[in-house]
Amino acid sequence: MADQYAQSGEDKRPAEIPAIRWEEPPEGPVLVLLDQTRLPAEEVELVCTDASALVEAIRSLAVRGAPLLGIAGAYGVALAAARGFDVDDAANALAGARPTAVNLSVGVRRARAAYRAELAEGGDPAQGARAALAAARQLHREDAEASVRMAGHGLALLDELLPGGGHRVLTHCNTGALVSGGEGTAFAVALAAHRVGRLRRLWVDETRPLLQGARLTAYEAARNGMAYTLLTDNAAGSLFAAGEVDAVLIGADRIAADGSVANKVGSYPLAVLARYHHVPFIVVAPVTTVDLETPDGASIEVEQRPGFEVTEAMAAQAPVTGAGGGIPVAPLGTQAYNPAFDVTPPELVTAIVTEEGVVSPVTADALAELCGRARRGGAGAAL
Amino acid sequence: MADQYAQSGEDKRPAEIPAIRWEEPPEGPVLVLLDQTRLPAEEVELVCTDASALVEAIRSLAVRGAPLLGIAGAYGVALAAARGFDVDDAANALAGARPTAVNLSVGVRRARAAYRAELAEGGDPAQGARAALAAARQLHREDAEASVRMAGHGLALLDELLPGGGHRVLTHCNTGALVSGGEGTAFAVALAAHRVGRLRRLWVDETRPLLQGARLTAYEAARNGMAYTLLTDNAAGSLFAAGEVDAVLIGADRIAADGSVANKVGSYPLAVLARYHHVPFIVVAPVTTVDLETPDGASIEVEQRPGFEVTEAMAAQAPVTGAGGGIPVAPLGTQAYNPAFDVTPPELVTAIVTEEGVVSPVTADALAELCGRARRGGAGAAL
Repeated sequence: MADQYAQSGEDKRPAEIPAIRWEEPPEGPVLVLLDQTRLPAEEVELVCTDASALVEAIRSLAVRGAPLLGIAGAYGVALAAARGFDVDDAANALAGARPTAVNLSVGVRRARAAYRAELAEGGDPAQGARAALAAARQLHREDAEASVRMAGHGLALLDELLPGGGHRVLTHCNTGALVSGGEGTAFAVALAAHRVGRLRRLWVDETRPLLQGARLTAYEAARNGMAYTLLTDNAAGSLFAAGEVDAVLIGADRIAADGSVANKVGSYPLAVLARYHHVPFIVVAPVTTVDLETPDGASIEVEQRPGFEVTEAMAAQAPVTGAGGGIPVAPLGTQAYNPAFDVTPPELVTAIVTEEGVVSPVTADALAELCGRARRGGAGAAL
Repeated sequence: MADQYAQSGEDKRPAEIPAIRWEEPPEGPVLVLLDQTRLPAEEVELVCTDASALVEAIRSLAVRGAPLLGIAGAYGVALAAARGFDVDDAANALAGARPTAVNLSVGVRRARAAYRAELAEGGDPAQGARAALAAARQLHREDAEASVRMAGHGLALLDELLPGGGHRVLTHCNTGALVSGGEGTAFAVALAAHRVGRLRRLWVDETRPLLQGARLTAYEAARNGMAYTLLTDNAAGSLFAAGEVDAVLIGADRIAADGSVANKVGSYPLAVLARYHHVPFIVVAPVTTVDLETPDGASIEVEQRPGFEVTEAMAAQAPVTGAGGGIPVAPLGTQAYNPAFDVTPPELVTAIVTEEGVVSPVTADALAELCGRARRGGAGAAL
């Protein structure tokens, strides 16, 4: 049985609550998550004492976002090891908790590899657990550093593509500190532009059905004092038509070897709109998001989520009455199509910004070269 | 002060509740509306005893949809006349209640013209009121007939464009019996295809922020036994990419002389997606929607609606706590961009289907010719 409990974060100021942290109270190690399903109304921490509690938190989206899922997966393996659970079982459950984000299984594999290497060298399970934890912490640190580097490369690219400054950037879903060990991916680029006074407006897609834009990106934009405006996803077309969007910045959950980008559903329509309006469409993601074992977009498994996310108003915002825990919006019995992600083909992607540099135009060769460079470099050594 | 009260429609079966009807109880004439803001959860009728109550109902979207707004506007003028209010004041208030739908002011003008003509010929105000009511009823009847003819023309067009049958049609917002004196516009075409066994699937965009698709189109599709699936607006891209959409069918709130189509926000992104995927994008609307006095898309005034429709979960589905009457979803103080409509240029519209026939390709000349034909014909005599 999963052991997960909530604790109020009200005694901490928002900026002090990290999306994820490892703690070692006397009763044993725990992984503490900021419960993202309850933002921005409440800042509640979720304490996971075993891997199955973390699997539940991943499935319910209490913790989410491709880079953060990798970090969470690695800590989850360390938690299972430290608590004396079967590490392989925990690793398999964690890696399969959500199918699309490749970072999750990369993080899990990395911590498990560290655990196994320690045992292979004659270490005991406690030493293996410490090795897994060290690997998770290393990944966490690397991700924070990667954020800084992505922000730098992304800002340079924006300035090159839009020499006039005063960038009006449209973003989708949530890609800030809540998805990362650092300041995030696409959001970190917009934040970097804001800090140097070159962000005129951040257009925030609300991102149905779970409203990560309205709830989380708006929360992060407000916290950072950015000029932002929220819109329904389908109002983006009007902004493009009015010439109010200079660039689209999004994250990625998986990038195939051919440069196809799986990201939150709604990204692909933005890519088509951007192309039609000759606006740059820029993907910002760490190199770990590139999965050379997935040859193309058609090979990316897209997670289908339950229909009640569409047919009901969400539990977090409303008292519980419907089958999915929300208030029914559509007639009872209505079937919904609810893919979590969509896939944007490389020909619609202007550039992929990573911590190792910018890939543009997006080609299989350029991505393979990037991954090779990352593997040879320090940060990519454990890929 | 507006005089508007609700009465439960629970003693009537859904199919028996029309979107609008005129009644003459002993205490004086009233206009009875099916309150669309409370569907599908509750079928409640809203009784308007004067024009200002109707203006409120129009603004709150209790009554909505371009053709139905025209009928409501005409009845509103008749109601003001019958109740002895100033007809010009009522007409001005009604025509200005929502700026984008041209049908509203067309309906208002038509009933007022009938009222004025009666008085000019020596009739007294009571006779003028009867003339206005007769004009409203005539418009109501014509709209029902126009639905039938649009459905016929639209189905023939679908069969011509997609000779294989088994149409998978994507629609946006609500365009059925709830917006019309008959069975609607775009929805009536899908319904006609369903009745002859040629509709394989109706894809229903939920239509944020007010969820007319999830609440109203799903309700009408379920009532008619159609095979339908609901989706978030931003999931439409995935359907196009998967080749699951054979045609897009939408209504229109105003069509400019050059063929630019103002319709519910989110229509334009669908038009761009349809073009990118070589899928027909078909607009279904009565000839009264064509406004030759609006030269082009840029001249169409697009209604901006309050931000709380985006920043809060709606009052109809949740207990009241926010400034807009809903539950806050985004952080307090979040500014929202909330246009009610967008404008699709004629080059992205495959065809405009009207009761007088199909315009394709969409050009200013073809539209002018259509309007001329309608004016010479019976139905268009009072245009």
